[in-house]
Amino acid sequence: MGLEGLLFPKSVALIGASPRKGKLGNVLFKNMSSFPGQFYPVNPKYGEIEGVKCYPNVSSLPQVPDMAVVIIPADPALGAIEECGRVGIRNVVVISAGFKESGPKGAKREHKLIEIARKYGLNVLGPNCFGLISTEAGLNATFAMRGALPGNIAFLSQSGAFCTSVLDWAWKEKLGFSHFVSLGNKAVLNEAHFLKPFAEDPDTKVIVAYLEGIVDGATFIRIAREVVKTTPIVILKAGRTEAGARAVSSHTGTLAGSDAAYEAAFKKCGVIRARNVEELFDYAYALAKQPTPKGKCVGVMTNAGGAGVMASDAVEEYGLELARFGEETAKALGEFLPPAANIYNPVDVLGDAHLERYKKALDLVIDDPNVDMVVSLSAPAPLISFLELARAVSEAKRRSGKPLTVSFMAGELGEEAEEVLREAGIPSYFDPSRAVRALAVLHRYAEIKAAERKRPRMLAVDRERVEEILERAFAVGKTQLGVEAIEILSAYGIPVAPWGLARTPQEAGVLAKEIGGPVVLKLVSPDLVHKTEVGGVLLNVPEDEAKERAEGMLTRAAYRLPQARIEGVFVQKQMPPGQELILGSVRDPQFGPLVMVGLGGIFVEVLGDVVFGIAPLAPAEAREMVEAMRGYALLRGARGRQGVRVEAVVEALERISHLVHDFPEIVELDVNPLLAYPDRVAAVDLRITLSGGEK
Amino acid sequence: MGLEGLLFPKSVALIGASPRKGKLGNVLFKNMSSFPGQFYPVNPKYGEIEGVKCYPNVSSLPQVPDMAVVIIPADPALGAIEECGRVGIRNVVVISAGFKESGPKGAKREHKLIEIARKYGLNVLGPNCFGLISTEAGLNATFAMRGALPGNIAFLSQSGAFCTSVLDWAWKEKLGFSHFVSLGNKAVLNEAHFLKPFAEDPDTKVIVAYLEGIVDGATFIRIAREVVKTTPIVILKAGRTEAGARAVSSHTGTLAGSDAAYEAAFKKCGVIRARNVEELFDYAYALAKQPTPKGKCVGVMTNAGGAGVMASDAVEEYGLELARFGEETAKALGEFLPPAANIYNPVDVLGDAHLERYKKALDLVIDDPNVDMVVSLSAPAPLISFLELARAVSEAKRRSGKPLTVSFMAGELGEEAEEVLREAGIPSYFDPSRAVRALAVLHRYAEIKAAERKRPRMLAVDRERVEEILERAFAVGKTQLGVEAIEILSAYGIPVAPWGLARTPQEAGVLAKEIGGPVVLKLVSPDLVHKTEVGGVLLNVPEDEAKERAEGMLTRAAYRLPQARIEGVFVQKQMPPGQELILGSVRDPQFGPLVMVGLGGIFVEVLGDVVFGIAPLAPAEAREMVEAMRGYALLRGARGRQGVRVEAVVEALERISHLVHDFPEIVELDVNPLLAYPDRVAAVDLRITLSGGEK
Repeated sequence: MGLEGLLFPKSVALIGASPRKGKLGNVLFKNMSSFPGQFYPVNPKYGEIEGVKCYPNVSSLPQVPDMAVVIIPADPALGAIEECGRVGIRNVVVISAGFKESGPKGAKREHKLIEIARKYGLNVLGPNCFGLISTEAGLNATFAMRGALPGNIAFLSQSGAFCTSVLDWAWKEKLGFSHFVSLGNKAVLNEAHFLKPFAEDPDTKVIVAYLEGIVDGATFIRIAREVVKTTPIVILKAGRTEAGARAVSSHTGTLAGSDAAYEAAFKKCGVIRARNVEELFDYAYALAKQPTPKGKCVGVMTNAGGAGVMASDAVEEYGLELARFGEETAKALGEFLPPAANIYNPVDVLGDAHLERYKKALDLVIDDPNVDMVVSLSAPAPLISFLELARAVSEAKRRSGKPLTVSFMAGELGEEAEEVLREAGIPSYFDPSRAVRALAVLHRYAEIKAAERKRPRMLAVDRERVEEILERAFAVGKTQLGVEAIEILSAYGIPVAPWGLARTPQEAGVLAKEIGGPVVLKLVSPDLVHKTEVGGVLLNVPEDEAKERAEGMLTRAAYRLPQARIEGVFVQKQMPPGQELILGSVRDPQFGPLVMVGLGGIFVEVLGDVVFGIAPLAPAEAREMVEAMRGYALLRGARGRQGVRVEAVVEALERISHLVHDFPEIVELDVNPLLAYPDRVAAVDLRITLSGGEK
Repeated sequence: MGLEGLLFPKSVALIGASPRKGKLGNVLFKNMSSFPGQFYPVNPKYGEIEGVKCYPNVSSLPQVPDMAVVIIPADPALGAIEECGRVGIRNVVVISAGFKESGPKGAKREHKLIEIARKYGLNVLGPNCFGLISTEAGLNATFAMRGALPGNIAFLSQSGAFCTSVLDWAWKEKLGFSHFVSLGNKAVLNEAHFLKPFAEDPDTKVIVAYLEGIVDGATFIRIAREVVKTTPIVILKAGRTEAGARAVSSHTGTLAGSDAAYEAAFKKCGVIRARNVEELFDYAYALAKQPTPKGKCVGVMTNAGGAGVMASDAVEEYGLELARFGEETAKALGEFLPPAANIYNPVDVLGDAHLERYKKALDLVIDDPNVDMVVSLSAPAPLISFLELARAVSEAKRRSGKPLTVSFMAGELGEEAEEVLREAGIPSYFDPSRAVRALAVLHRYAEIKAAERKRPRMLAVDRERVEEILERAFAVGKTQLGVEAIEILSAYGIPVAPWGLARTPQEAGVLAKEIGGPVVLKLVSPDLVHKTEVGGVLLNVPEDEAKERAEGMLTRAAYRLPQARIEGVFVQKQMPPGQELILGSVRDPQFGPLVMVGLGGIFVEVLGDVVFGIAPLAPAEAREMVEAMRGYALLRGARGRQGVRVEAVVEALERISHLVHDFPEIVELDVNPLLAYPDRVAAVDLRITLSGGEK
C-alpha cells in the first residue's frame, strides 16, 4: 500500500493528546495544532484540549483519518493500534517507546505490533521514533520544539537523537526539508519503503539518510537502482569501521553487515555514500539545488591567486579536471583583462578587479562549451562587494544552467551575500576545496544517472546437476565440499582443469592416461582438512606412475588415518603456470551473497587487493570489479609478459555470482586458484561450505 | 640577526603616511596610530597628519626606530630603504608592489632591493606583501580594516589575499593570533626565518602557514626539526598537484611527482600537513589550546547512540583507538547508570540524562588511566542545557589535564555554550568526526615530539674513490654512468655482486674464473643505452665459456655498431634469484637529493609502491621508509617464504642517501635491482646521471 496517507495526510489523529505542560502528548498536540487539515486529539480523559474537541478513542471520530500518531505507553498503544486497524486507519506513527529496544518484554510487544500491522495492512512508522514532518502537508508530528523549513531534501534517520540535532542545526543553517522521517525500530516500515514515494514527490530533489543498518538488502538495492535514475540518494551509514560496528550492536541491536557488503551494495545501486555529517549535508544541499553537469571539467574564477591554487588542488583531488578553454574564450579574456591577469584556467582577474571585470570574465568562462561547471572564488577586495558578486554569480548560474559553487573567503564581510546565494541555491564555503567537493558530488551523480544498470544475463547453466550434488551432500550430512565437487563449476559453465575421480589405483591409472600426464593426485576424504600434511596431494605425477602413486597414497592414508573415510583419489591435469586468481563468495546477512575477486599470491595475502560485489552480477558489474583490482594491469600484461584473457575471468566471476545467487545453501565458496592464460581460464581447486556448516 | 625588532618593535616609522582618505598610506597610518610604542609617520609633503607630527624622511627622526614600514611606490621605495639602512634601521616591511611579480623591470628592482638588504644587513619583509600584525606588540602594520584578536597562533602566508580572507573570517570565528605575517615575494626573509622566533615566543603555541613553495629546503628542514620539539608547525602547501618542470631520465625521476619532495620533507622534519583550509585552522586551534595526549586511546561520552557510533567510526578512521576502561571505571559506571545505558566505550548516558549523570560518567571516563583523551558528544536533550554541559566539560578538561573536544550536535540551542567552550579552548563542531579529527592531530603531534630525530651517522666511506671516478667521467664529458661505475657503490659500503672489467676476451676469461661462474657479461660503451637489444648482455655464462662469449660479443658490437666506443666487457657474478628492490635518487630543486626505495617488479611498475625521503637519512629514517612500503611484509617473509635481511636493505638505503648527499653532481641515480637475500644484499646494476646530463 502506498504511503500517501503518511506523507501527505489530509486528516490526522493524535492518540494520547494531553493538555498538561511538559508531557510529550502536549508537545505533540501543540505541534500538530497548526496542521491545516483535520486534526483530531484523542484521549478519553478530556472532552477538549485548548479549545479543540477531544475524542475518547478513534472509533468515535467523525471521519476515518488518513493517519494516527500514537504517544501513549506501549501496552495500551497495542490496543489503540488494533483499534486503528479496525476502523480503517491505514497509517500509524508509533512514537511510544517500550518495544524491542527495551529488552525481551518489549521485543514481545514489537512482535505483537507486527502481527497487528500484518492483520490490518497497516503502515506503521516506528515504534520508538521521533515522528515525522511533512512540510508539504504542513504537518509536524514530532516532539521537536520547532518543525522544519520547507525545502527539497527528504531526510530519513535511524537515530531519533540525530533528528533533534539536525532539526535544530538546520534552522541555524536555514536548510529546508520536504519530509523528515524518524524510522525508529523499523518494525514494519523501513528505509526501502520511503525511497519511491520520495522520488515520486516533485518537491523532493534529493533523499538523504542516516542509517546504522539496512533491513532488507535485496529489496533496498532493487528499489534504489530505480530511484537514483531520477533522484539522488545520499547515505551516511554509521558503524562503518570495526570500532563503530561494535557501538552499533550495543545501540539498537542492529545486525550490522560487514562494511564491504554496504560498500558493494551502494556501488551496485548508485547510492552516494557520505563519510560524515559534513559530507552528508554538503552533498544534500548541492544535489537539491544544482543541475547535473555534462562532464567533469571545471572553470575556476578567482580574484586571488592563492584561492585559485587551492581550488585547482581540490579539482584534482576530487577526480575532476581543470577545463581547457576554447580559443575564443582565451582570446576574449585577453582582450580586456590586465596583462598580469591569468587568462587560462584558473582565471585570475586580480584583486583590483571591479565587478564588471569579474562578471565579464565569469560569463565568458561559464559559456565556454568546454566548461561543465564553475567554482567562483573571491577574497575581500576593495572594488567588489560580496553582495554584488553574489548577485552576479547567481545570474550566471541561472542563465547558463550549469552548476556553480562559491568560496567567498571572508567572514563578516561575506555575510551580506549569504541570503542571495541561498535564494539562488548556491553552496558557499570559506574553504575553496569544500566548494569544489560540492561540484564533485554533482559530477558523481551525473555518472550514476548515465550508468547503464543492466540486469544480470540469463545464462545457460545445468542447475539440476548442482542440485543433485548438493542434495547428495546434505543426504550424508556433508557441509564441506572440496575439489571433488568441482563439477558444480562445470555445471555453471566455468572452465575447470580436466579431472576424474578414481575409487581404486587402477581407475587412477586409467584416468591419468585419459587426461594425459602429468597429473595431480588429491586424496578425497570428508574427514581431512589439510590434505598436504598427510601426503594427500601429489604434484606432477607422470601418467604411467599414477596407478602406483595412487596406491601408495591410499595405503598411507589407511595406515595413518585409520578412522578417516576415504572416498578415493581425485586425478587432475597438472596445469601449466598461469596468473593465479581467487574468486569467492560469502553470504552477508543483509545483502545475501557477496562475491569477491582478487589476484592470487601476494596481492591477496600481502596487499589485501580484493574487490567485492553483490550477486548476481551483470556482465558490466563483473568487468568493473575485475578492473578495480589494483593489480588489474597484470591481467592486461605488464612487464613484457603476455596478458590473460580478461573476458574469461570476467565471465567466470559472473557465473560464480549466478551460482551463489541460485543456491542460497552455499554460504561460502572459494575458487582458489583460478588460473588465467592468454586464451582461457581454468579452475583448479574449490572449497564450499553449505548452510549448517559455518564455523 | 634576530627578528625581535620586527616582531616586537618598540618604535616604528611609516614611510608614505598620508592624510588622504582611501589611500593605503592613510589606512596604514590609522592602523598604526594605535601602536602603544613610538610611531613616526614619514612623508616630506606633510608637517603633521591628524595631529601627529610627520617627518620628511627617516634621517630626521628623533630616534632610530626598530622598524620601518614602506608604502611608497617601488622606485622611490628603494631609495627610502637604502636610507633606512644608512641611519641604522634594521627591519623594513615593504608593502609596496612593483617588484618581481610585475615583470622584468620589477625583477630588477627586487634584485636591487636584495643588494641593499645585504649591504646594510636589513631584515626585509616582502616586498609586495600585506604587512604584519603583532598582537603582542599592539601593532597592526597592514592595510586590513581590522587587526587581529590576540591569541596563540602565529600565522605566515605567502598569499596576501589569503591574509585578508583569514583576518576577516577570524573575527567571525573569534580566532586569535600572536603574529600575523604576510611573506610577499620573500626577497630576503622567508618562512624559515620566522620559525625559531615564533617558537621562542611564549605566547605562540602553534605556527601555521599557507605556502606555495619553500625557498631553501635544507635550511627549512634543519630549523623546523628543532622547532617542532616545542612548537607544532602546520602547513597548507598549495599547488600540490602542479606538474613539476623537472628533467627526468631515471626510473626514480619518473616516479617522483612534484609533491613527493614536500611530502618527504614535511615527514622528515615533523611538520603537520593540512590538506585544506578547514584542516589548517581546525588543527591550529586544537594545537594552540590543548595539551598533547599520552597515547592514542579515546574515551567517547554521549547521550545519543548515533553520535557515539559516528565518533567511533572516526576514531578508527583517524588512526586512534577506543579506550578500554579499567574494571573499576566500568563497575563505577554500572552502579549509577540506568540498565539501558552503555557502560563500555562509547559511554551512552541516554537522552534522559540530567547533568549530574553526564558529569559523573564523564569524570569517571576522563580519570580512567586507560583514557588519553575524550570526545564529548551531546544531542539536544530535555534535561541538560548545552551551557551547563559546556561548563562541565571545561571543568573536566581543566582538572584532568587531558585533551577534550566536543560535538554538540545542535544549532541555535548550542550557541549559548560557545563562549564557555572558547574560553576553555575546547574545539566544538556539529560533526562528531571533526571533533575526533581534532584529537587525532594532537596525538599526531605527540608522536612527532616523541620521535627521536637522530642525526645521520658518520659512515666510513671512500669518498676519494668516488671523486676519482666522477672526475674521470667529467674529464671525458661523460654524464651517464652504467654498471661499470658500480665501484661507486662499493666505495660507500654498499655490497655489490662480484665483478671485474675486461678489456679483452682473455681478461674476461680470467675474471670469470676469479669470480667463479656462471657469470653475466655486459658490454660497456658510453654510446649504448639499451645493451640488451644489440646482444650486449649475456646471462648465465659458464666460466670456461666466458672468453669465447666475450669475444663474440665484442665482434658483434664492432660489426653492428662500428661508430660506438667500446670500453670492454663487464664481468659479473650471476646472482641467484632474490627479492628485487629498486633504490634511487633524484635531485629536487628545493630539497636537494630525494631518495627512493621500492620493491622491484610489479610493485614499482604496476602498483607504484615506492617511498621517498630526503637525504641524508638517519638509520631510523631509512628503516621507516622501508617499513612504509605496502609490500614490506614480503621482505619479512610472507607466504611461507623466508624473509630477507631487512637491516641490510635499510643500511644500503642509508648509504645511498649519504652518497647522493655528498656528491651533488649526481643528479639522478638508480640501483636496479638490489637483490636481497636472507643473509645479505647485493647491488647488480646501476645508472647514474651527472649534472649536465639531464634530459
